[in-house]
Amino acid sequence: MTIDILTLFPEMFIPLKSSIIGRAENAGIVKIGIHNIRDYTADKHGKCDDVPYGGGAGMVMTPQPIVDCVRAVDPDKRARRIFLSPRGRKLSVDIAKELSCEKSLLLLCGHYEGVDERALEICGFEELSIGDYILTGGELAAMVTVDSLLRFVPGVLGSEESAQSESFSDGKLEYPQYTRPAVFEGVAVPEVLLSGHHANIDKWRARKSVELTESVRPDLIKDDN
Amino acid sequence: MTIDILTLFPEMFIPLKSSIIGRAENAGIVKIGIHNIRDYTADKHGKCDDVPYGGGAGMVMTPQPIVDCVRAVDPDKRARRIFLSPRGRKLSVDIAKELSCEKSLLLLCGHYEGVDERALEICGFEELSIGDYILTGGELAAMVTVDSLLRFVPGVLGSEESAQSESFSDGKLEYPQYTRPAVFEGVAVPEVLLSGHHANIDKWRARKSVELTESVRPDLIKDDN
Repeated sequence: MTIDILTLFPEMFIPLKSSIIGRAENAGIVKIGIHNIRDYTADKHGKCDDVPYGGGAGMVMTPQPIVDCVRAVDPDKRARRIFLSPRGRKLSVDIAKELSCEKSLLLLCGHYEGVDERALEICGFEELSIGDYILTGGELAAMVTVDSLLRFVPGVLGSEESAQSESFSDGKLEYPQYTRPAVFEGVAVPEVLLSGHHANIDKWRARKSVELTESVRPDLIKDDN
Repeated sequence: MTIDILTLFPEMFIPLKSSIIGRAENAGIVKIGIHNIRDYTADKHGKCDDVPYGGGAGMVMTPQPIVDCVRAVDPDKRARRIFLSPRGRKLSVDIAKELSCEKSLLLLCGHYEGVDERALEICGFEELSIGDYILTGGELAAMVTVDSLLRFVPGVLGSEESAQSESFSDGKLEYPQYTRPAVFEGVAVPEVLLSGHHANIDKWRARKSVELTESVRPDLIKDDN
């Protein structure tokens, strides 16, 4: 799988080198390219933004550097092109799974007040949002998207089971976890977990999972989401 | 404002040094402390995780290093303590605004299969989720939370207007933005934006904002969210 990320702040992508994602890249399962949009500007001062037409606060990213960067990175239009934006479809486990099946993704990170709408239209970007809040730029959103989808790419997680047993995998939140010591500061691990009785453990975990979902996120049950 | 982040991967927090957040820290508006949970483990091999009681894939973070790290960082229990977790209340613009009013936040990043439930109970963590998807760890979620709330702290954004005119600020998505040139690859900026007629520009933007919200996120209008 190839993931190309277009940004004005390539130095922000250090977290993608960490942990599971870094290992997936080293193992050749995914190739992540970080491209600096500024390298493609035709402006002799390196400018990539300008004031918005019609007035208003902030700056808008100009179309030329973005369009030229997209054409250089994906000349054959093979990548699914995604602009990280609060206006987009909302990222979910299902969308992460869907994206994990693509051969090639191109993620555009906006910054400042936004991106000239013509760049999005000319390049055919779909829009994706990681949640109903505003970020300084699309960089963190791109990293969240990559992290959430890569775990569904075979070979990225150590064990297939890990992605299956997690929150949302069956539409419910995950049960509480405990590890050693059996008693910590006077608080004991629930007895059933020490029993070795697997059917009872599964039953306890399923019940906790339902209780937790009903209490914190009843919408997940009602909406059958 | 003070934000303390507890993590096993302190090197992932480079993005917080960038752009607006870095400037806010340099200006003394916010103080962000990154604390390595591993520095607090009593295990002589530096271990901070162990197998889950009751079986299952993955590892669980042990309670001792977390609890001791929390006590060292926030001895007087002044901070609002938040564990980034898919089980939590969902981050939104409203929650970001609410968090921006706190004097002190302590964010705990989980990793692996989760965190021993007793650590969360003993320290009194509330849980916060950035969306209905799974991440390798809480680090990106913590950065997203910090980024989304800091823009509501006075002085962080260049202009007060900027946070006001953005998506969701009035419960709707933002209108399309355009900047120079007026014609790019044959596509012209909508004429009204070049007219200088401010009432018409405001009307056009409001209409586009409603159209876009109705088409992409009708739930924002229906739920009056």
